[in-house]
Amino acid sequence: MREIKAVLFDVDDTLYDSTLQVNRARANAVKAMREAGLGVTDNEGLLVLEEIVKEFGSNYPNQFNELLKKLEYEYNPRIIAAGVAAYHSTKTAYLTPFPDTVPTLLKLRDSGFMLGVVTDGISVKQWEKLIRLGLQHFFHTVVISSDVGCEKPREELFHIAAERLSCKKEDMVMVGDRIDRDILGANKAGMLTVRIMKGKYRNQKPENSLEKPDYIIENLHEIIEILKK
Amino acid sequence: MREIKAVLFDVDDTLYDSTLQVNRARANAVKAMREAGLGVTDNEGLLVLEEIVKEFGSNYPNQFNELLKKLEYEYNPRIIAAGVAAYHSTKTAYLTPFPDTVPTLLKLRDSGFMLGVVTDGISVKQWEKLIRLGLQHFFHTVVISSDVGCEKPREELFHIAAERLSCKKEDMVMVGDRIDRDILGANKAGMLTVRIMKGKYRNQKPENSLEKPDYIIENLHEIIEILKK
Repeated sequence: MREIKAVLFDVDDTLYDSTLQVNRARANAVKAMREAGLGVTDNEGLLVLEEIVKEFGSNYPNQFNELLKKLEYEYNPRIIAAGVAAYHSTKTAYLTPFPDTVPTLLKLRDSGFMLGVVTDGISVKQWEKLIRLGLQHFFHTVVISSDVGCEKPREELFHIAAERLSCKKEDMVMVGDRIDRDILGANKAGMLTVRIMKGKYRNQKPENSLEKPDYIIENLHEIIEILKK
Repeated sequence: MREIKAVLFDVDDTLYDSTLQVNRARANAVKAMREAGLGVTDNEGLLVLEEIVKEFGSNYPNQFNELLKKLEYEYNPRIIAAGVAAYHSTKTAYLTPFPDTVPTLLKLRDSGFMLGVVTDGISVKQWEKLIRLGLQHFFHTVVISSDVGCEKPREELFHIAAERLSCKKEDMVMVGDRIDRDILGANKAGMLTVRIMKGKYRNQKPENSLEKPDYIIENLHEIIEILKK
């Protein structure tokens, strides 16, 4: 019989509302750029910005320069800076855990579980999130794709977490919002999987049995009940 | 034999560096007011502001109005607002736990201790601190003087904490920086007492045996070793 000893978590849209944060940050950036002189409505600007993110990726550092270009504006550092400043202030303001994140992590630790993070992203950026969320001390290990050299759903990330926690993979649970990354990867590694229905991927449908989670939860604290079984 | 089951904490200068926070906030407020047109050096302004705080108390809401008066300036809302804005931004920026606060609280919970806060102050303000520090979920009870109607070193506060945690007072530890408040009050209540040498009261000398703590620590994490005994 499997006995769960460790719980792994994705970060974005699992421990905090990353979708809301990014949407509000982009909207506020476009508004600030409009107020600084960019001649578009907030909706138009936002649509173009979202195209840029799709094209260049969400970590592209020059998205606001690109926005001016796409709108056929000349380079204007004042307008770009207005966007950058509003974007960062808004991102920081919305970087707070879900209301049940800390209570749930505390209860899991009180019950003796080992806790880990398995996340895709740039190491410094993901650590900055954990620190600003005030969660940096909760986890016995933090595995980040840029440190490892591959991303979810690759099994390596989950193997590393298991090794660092000295735990058998079948005695571990992975909690995440993305079935094509968190659930697929952890299922391949032989872990128990829990899908949390948060963020922009909440309507995604499994394309094969490995994308199907063992459990589905709406909120993080429901993991406590699952672990009691 | 006493068996410690619960640990109580003071907040200011015990869980975070309140002295540094307040000093930096006041200094930055005076600098902002000078930049907005107040004709004093930063040092002079700060000295007058500190006199005002001594006279009216640290929660006095009109300290910057008063500063203008004392310096024989006419009422000037622009200069006052510059001080208020800088003061609040700086206070927020320095409102972070000591580096070992969260790790220590986690270890204590992992070991099964009940945790509480016993603090003097205005209830909403003290809760705002705990929330901004990211510590609001760590404690099984939070006792604040303005809710109770009396301040440390009055024993009532410690009795209430003991009652709420269903714990005998001799099985509890109080950790705080002030010998005339935290240590005196908890000693009177029959608790074990630990003085943490932080903040502006770190040079205070005990005036009687009830102000003498059972243990002295420099940093919060040392409590772990004490509790092992």
